Amino acid sequence: MIKVKIVSVGKTKEPWLEQAIGEYLKRLTGQIEIALMWVKNDDQLVQLVEKEGAVICLDPQGKEFDSLLFSRFLEKSIEASGARLTFVIGGAEGLPQALKENHPLISLSRLTFTHQLTRLVLIEQLYRAFTLIQGIPYHK
Amino acid sequence: MIKVKIVSVGKTKEPWLEQAIGEYLKRLTGQIEIALMWVKNDDQLVQLVEKEGAVICLDPQGKEFDSLLFSRFLEKSIEASGARLTFVIGGAEGLPQALKENHPLISLSRLTFTHQLTRLVLIEQLYRAFTLIQGIPYHK
Repeated sequence: MIKVKIVSVGKTKEPWLEQAIGEYLKRLTGQIEIALMWVKNDDQLVQLVEKEGAVICLDPQGKEFDSLLFSRFLEKSIEASGARLTFVIGGAEGLPQALKENHPLISLSRLTFTHQLTRLVLIEQLYRAFTLIQGIPYHK
Repeated sequence: MIKVKIVSVGKTKEPWLEQAIGEYLKRLTGQIEIALMWVKNDDQLVQLVEKEGAVICLDPQGKEFDSLLFSRFLEKSIEASGARLTFVIGGAEGLPQALKENHPLISLSRLTFTHQLTRLVLIEQLYRAFTLIQGIPYHK
Protein backbone atom coordinates (compact mmCIF):
# COMPACT_ATOMS: atom_id res chain seq x y z
CA MET A 1 0.00 0.00 0.00
CA ILE A 2 1.25 3.47 -0.91
CA LYS A 3 1.39 5.78 2.09
CA VAL A 4 1.23 9.53 1.68
CA LYS A 5 1.40 12.09 4.47
CA ILE A 6 0.19 15.63 3.97
CA VAL A 7 1.53 17.96 6.63
CA SER A 8 0.31 21.52 7.04
CA VAL A 9 0.32 24.37 9.52
CA GLY A 10 -3.06 24.99 11.12
CA LYS A 11 -5.94 22.57 11.30
CA THR A 12 -8.98 22.62 9.05
CA LYS A 13 -12.08 23.94 10.71
CA GLU A 14 -14.35 24.24 7.69
CA PRO A 15 -16.94 21.44 7.57
CA TRP A 16 -17.14 21.73 3.76
CA LEU A 17 -13.42 21.01 3.45
CA GLU A 18 -13.67 17.91 5.63
CA GLN A 19 -16.51 16.67 3.43
CA ALA A 20 -14.69 17.41 0.20
CA ILE A 21 -11.44 15.78 1.30
CA GLY A 22 -13.38 12.84 2.75
CA GLU A 23 -14.95 12.24 -0.67
CA TYR A 24 -11.55 11.92 -2.40
CA LEU A 25 -10.05 9.84 0.44
CA LYS A 26 -12.96 7.41 0.06
CA ARG A 27 -12.26 7.06 -3.67
CA LEU A 28 -8.59 6.35 -2.94
CA THR A 29 -9.33 3.63 -0.35
CA GLY A 30 -7.39 0.46 -1.00
CA GLN A 31 -4.92 2.14 -3.36
CA ILE A 32 -3.31 4.81 -1.29
CA GLU A 33 -3.44 5.61 2.40
CA ILE A 34 -3.41 9.35 3.05
CA ALA A 35 -2.67 10.67 6.52
CA LEU A 36 -3.45 14.35 7.11
CA MET A 37 -1.22 15.86 9.78
CA TRP A 38 -1.22 19.31 11.35
CA VAL A 39 1.36 21.24 13.28
CA LYS A 40 0.93 24.51 15.16
CA ASN A 41 3.84 26.50 13.78
CA ASP A 42 6.92 26.53 11.56
CA ASP A 43 9.24 25.12 14.27
CA GLN A 44 7.03 22.09 14.71
CA LEU A 45 6.79 21.76 10.94
CA VAL A 46 10.58 21.66 10.52
CA GLN A 47 10.96 19.19 13.42
CA LEU A 48 8.33 16.85 12.04
CA VAL A 49 9.59 17.00 8.45
CA GLU A 50 13.19 16.22 9.54
CA LYS A 51 12.05 12.74 10.55
CA GLU A 52 10.48 12.01 7.18
CA GLY A 53 12.16 10.30 4.24
CA ALA A 54 10.97 11.54 0.85
CA VAL A 55 9.65 15.06 1.31
CA ILE A 56 8.02 17.22 -1.37
CA CYS A 57 7.24 20.85 -0.51
CA LEU A 58 4.44 22.85 -2.10
CA ASP A 59 5.28 26.41 -2.99
CA PRO A 60 3.80 28.81 -5.58
CA GLN A 61 7.34 29.29 -6.96
CA GLY A 62 8.04 25.56 -7.27
CA LYS A 63 8.11 23.42 -10.40
CA GLU A 64 4.83 23.34 -12.28
CA PHE A 65 3.26 20.37 -14.00
CA ASP A 66 0.21 19.68 -16.05
CA SER A 67 -1.90 16.83 -14.68
CA LEU A 68 -0.30 14.18 -16.90
CA LEU A 69 3.25 15.20 -15.97
CA PHE A 70 2.22 15.42 -12.33
CA SER A 71 1.03 11.80 -12.49
CA ARG A 72 4.41 10.76 -13.95
CA PHE A 73 6.27 12.76 -11.31
CA LEU A 74 4.16 11.07 -8.64
CA GLU A 75 4.74 7.60 -10.08
CA LYS A 76 8.52 8.13 -10.10
CA SER A 77 8.51 9.63 -6.61
CA ILE A 78 6.56 6.64 -5.28
CA GLU A 79 9.04 4.22 -6.87
CA ALA A 80 12.08 6.11 -5.63
CA SER A 81 10.76 6.46 -2.07
CA GLY A 82 9.54 2.92 -1.50
CA ALA A 83 5.95 4.22 -1.61
CA ARG A 84 6.32 6.59 1.37
CA LEU A 85 5.87 10.24 0.46
CA THR A 86 5.37 13.35 2.57
CA PHE A 87 3.90 16.52 1.09
CA VAL A 88 4.39 19.74 3.03
CA ILE A 89 2.12 22.79 2.84
CA GLY A 90 3.34 25.99 4.51
CA GLY A 91 1.28 28.38 6.62
CA ALA A 92 0.03 31.88 5.79
CA GLU A 93 3.61 33.18 5.45
CA GLY A 94 4.73 30.34 3.18
CA LEU A 95 7.29 27.62 3.85
CA PRO A 96 10.20 28.02 6.29
CA GLN A 97 13.46 28.71 4.43
CA ALA A 98 15.09 25.54 5.85
CA LEU A 99 12.49 23.39 4.10
CA LYS A 100 12.66 25.34 0.85
CA GLU A 101 16.41 24.77 0.63
CA ASN A 102 16.50 21.07 1.41
CA HIS A 103 13.58 19.55 -0.47
CA PRO A 104 12.12 19.58 -3.97
CA LEU A 105 9.56 22.35 -4.44
CA ILE A 106 6.51 21.80 -6.60
CA SER A 107 3.73 24.23 -7.43
CA LEU A 108 0.04 23.55 -7.88
CA SER A 109 -0.42 27.08 -9.19
CA ARG A 110 1.42 30.38 -9.41
CA LEU A 111 -1.52 31.75 -7.44
CA THR A 112 -1.42 31.70 -3.65
CA PHE A 113 -4.13 29.50 -2.16
CA THR A 114 -5.15 29.13 1.48
CA HIS A 115 -3.56 26.04 3.01
CA GLN A 116 -7.05 24.57 3.21
CA LEU A 117 -7.64 24.96 -0.51
CA THR A 118 -4.10 23.73 -1.23
CA ARG A 119 -4.87 20.53 0.66
CA LEU A 120 -8.05 19.97 -1.35
CA VAL A 121 -6.39 20.70 -4.71
CA LEU A 122 -3.47 18.38 -3.84
CA ILE A 123 -5.75 15.51 -2.86
CA GLU A 124 -7.85 15.97 -5.99
CA GLN A 125 -4.66 15.86 -8.07
CA LEU A 126 -3.45 12.73 -6.24
CA TYR A 127 -6.77 11.09 -7.11
CA ARG A 128 -6.55 12.34 -10.71
CA ALA A 129 -2.95 11.10 -10.99
CA PHE A 130 -3.94 7.63 -9.79
CA THR A 131 -6.71 7.41 -12.36
CA LEU A 132 -4.13 8.34 -15.04
CA ILE A 133 -1.47 5.91 -13.73
CA GLN A 134 -3.98 3.07 -13.61
CA GLY A 135 -5.78 4.06 -16.81
CA ILE A 136 -9.19 4.16 -15.16
CA PRO A 137 -11.81 6.81 -15.94
CA TYR A 138 -11.96 9.82 -13.65
CA HIS A 139 -15.03 9.50 -11.45
CA LYS A 140 -16.68 12.96 -11.43
CA MET B 1 -21.61 47.51 -7.82
CA ILE B 2 -19.27 45.24 -9.74
CA LYS B 3 -21.10 42.37 -11.42
CA VAL B 4 -19.35 39.14 -12.27
CA LYS B 5 -20.90 36.15 -13.99
CA ILE B 6 -19.29 32.72 -13.79
CA VAL B 7 -20.62 30.40 -16.47
CA SER B 8 -19.85 26.69 -16.51
CA VAL B 9 -21.02 23.46 -18.10
CA GLY B 10 -22.77 21.15 -15.66
CA LYS B 11 -24.34 22.12 -12.37
CA THR B 12 -22.76 21.61 -8.97
CA LYS B 13 -24.27 18.78 -7.02
CA GLU B 14 -21.78 18.56 -4.16
CA PRO B 15 -23.16 20.07 -0.94
CA TRP B 16 -19.61 20.87 0.24
CA LEU B 17 -19.00 22.99 -2.84
CA GLU B 18 -22.20 24.97 -2.31
CA GLN B 19 -21.12 25.65 1.26
CA ALA B 20 -17.60 26.63 0.31
CA ILE B 21 -18.70 28.96 -2.48
CA GLY B 22 -21.44 30.38 -0.23
CA GLU B 23 -18.82 31.33 2.34
CA TYR B 24 -16.82 33.40 -0.17
CA LEU B 25 -19.93 34.95 -1.72
CA LYS B 26 -20.97 36.09 1.75
CA ARG B 27 -17.60 37.77 2.28
CA LEU B 28 -17.94 39.57 -1.05
CA THR B 29 -21.44 40.89 -0.33
CA GLY B 30 -21.74 44.62 -0.95
CA GLN B 31 -18.56 44.78 -3.04
CA ILE B 32 -19.18 42.44 -5.89
CA GLU B 33 -22.24 40.59 -7.06
CA ILE B 34 -21.41 37.14 -8.39
CA ALA B 35 -23.96 35.23 -10.45
CA LEU B 36 -23.25 31.52 -10.98
CA MET B 37 -24.73 30.26 -14.23
CA TRP B 38 -24.87 26.79 -15.71
CA VAL B 39 -25.46 25.49 -19.18
CA LYS B 40 -26.01 21.90 -20.30
CA ASN B 41 -23.52 21.67 -23.13
CA ASP B 42 -20.99 23.47 -25.33
CA ASP B 43 -23.60 24.78 -27.79
CA GLN B 44 -25.53 26.47 -25.01
CA LEU B 45 -22.26 27.80 -23.62
CA VAL B 46 -21.29 29.44 -26.92
CA GLN B 47 -24.80 30.88 -27.37
CA LEU B 48 -24.87 32.35 -23.88
CA VAL B 49 -21.34 33.77 -24.06
CA GLU B 50 -22.03 35.48 -27.40
CA LYS B 51 -24.46 37.80 -25.62
CA GLU B 52 -21.92 38.86 -23.02
CA GLY B 53 -19.62 41.87 -23.20
CA ALA B 54 -16.25 41.33 -21.51
CA VAL B 55 -15.56 37.61 -21.47
CA ILE B 56 -12.56 35.89 -19.88
CA CYS B 57 -12.10 32.17 -20.48
CA LEU B 58 -10.36 29.81 -18.07
CA ASP B 59 -8.03 27.28 -19.64
CA PRO B 60 -5.01 25.38 -18.26
CA GLN B 61 -2.99 26.69 -21.24
CA GLY B 62 -4.01 30.33 -20.69
CA LYS B 63 -1.96 33.15 -19.24
CA GLU B 64 -0.81 32.53 -15.68
CA PHE B 65 -0.64 35.06 -12.87
CA ASP B 66 0.48 35.11 -9.29
CA SER B 67 -2.19 36.40 -6.91
CA LEU B 68 -0.91 39.99 -6.94
CA LEU B 69 -0.79 40.16 -10.75
CA PHE B 70 -4.21 38.52 -10.91
CA SER B 71 -5.61 41.29 -8.70
CA ARG B 72 -4.12 43.91 -11.07
CA PHE B 73 -5.48 42.08 -14.10
CA LEU B 74 -8.89 41.97 -12.44
CA GLU B 75 -8.78 45.65 -11.53
CA LYS B 76 -7.95 46.62 -15.13
CA SER B 77 -10.57 44.28 -16.57
CA ILE B 78 -13.22 45.76 -14.28
CA GLU B 79 -12.29 49.29 -15.35
CA ALA B 80 -12.21 48.42 -19.04
CA SER B 81 -15.54 46.57 -18.95
CA GLY B 82 -17.60 49.03 -16.94
CA ALA B 83 -17.59 46.56 -14.04
CA ARG B 84 -19.35 43.76 -15.93
CA LEU B 85 -17.21 40.65 -16.36
CA THR B 86 -18.05 37.11 -17.44
CA PHE B 87 -15.73 34.20 -16.61
CA VAL B 88 -16.21 30.99 -18.58
CA ILE B 89 -15.26 27.51 -17.36
CA GLY B 90 -15.34 24.69 -19.89
CA GLY B 91 -16.71 21.18 -19.33
CA ALA B 92 -14.81 17.90 -19.00
CA GLU B 93 -13.43 18.21 -22.54
CA GLY B 94 -12.27 21.80 -22.07
CA LEU B 95 -13.48 24.95 -23.77
CA PRO B 96 -15.10 24.97 -27.24
CA GLN B 97 -12.61 26.15 -29.89
CA ALA B 98 -14.83 29.12 -30.84
CA LEU B 99 -14.49 30.55 -27.35
CA LYS B 100 -10.75 29.87 -27.14
CA GLU B 101 -10.17 31.85 -30.33
CA ASN B 102 -12.26 34.90 -29.53
CA HIS B 103 -11.59 35.69 -25.89
CA PRO B 104 -8.63 36.15 -23.56
CA LEU B 105 -7.57 32.88 -21.92
CA ILE B 106 -6.30 32.85 -18.38
CA SER B 107 -5.08 29.92 -16.32
CA LEU B 108 -5.53 29.25 -12.62
CA SER B 109 -3.08 26.36 -12.89
CA ARG B 110 -1.32 24.23 -15.47
CA LEU B 111 -3.09 21.33 -13.76
CA THR B 112 -6.53 20.29 -14.91
CA PHE B 113 -9.16 20.75 -12.23
CA THR B 114 -12.78 19.61 -12.23
CA HIS B 115 -15.07 22.45 -13.20
CA GLN B 116 -16.39 22.38 -9.64
CA LEU B 117 -12.95 22.91 -8.15
CA THR B 118 -12.19 25.55 -10.80
CA ARG B 119 -15.26 27.49 -9.70
CA LEU B 120 -14.16 27.38 -6.06
CA VAL B 121 -10.55 28.36 -6.83
CA LEU B 122 -11.74 31.23 -9.05
CA ILE B 123 -14.09 32.61 -6.39
CA GLU B 124 -11.40 32.32 -3.72
CA GLN B 125 -9.03 34.25 -6.00
CA LEU B 126 -11.68 36.91 -6.69
CA TYR B 127 -12.06 37.34 -2.94
CA ARG B 128 -8.26 37.40 -2.47
CA ALA B 129 -7.88 39.93 -5.31
CA PHE B 130 -10.45 42.24 -3.74
CA THR B 131 -8.63 42.17 -0.40
CA LEU B 132 -5.43 43.11 -2.26
CA ILE B 133 -7.11 45.85 -4.34
CA GLN B 134 -8.69 47.36 -1.24
CA GLY B 135 -5.70 46.76 1.02
CA ILE B 136 -7.72 44.90 3.63
CA PRO B 137 -6.44 41.80 5.47
CA TYR B 138 -7.40 38.43 4.04
CA HIS B 139 -10.02 36.87 6.31
CA LYS B 140 -8.98 33.23 6.75
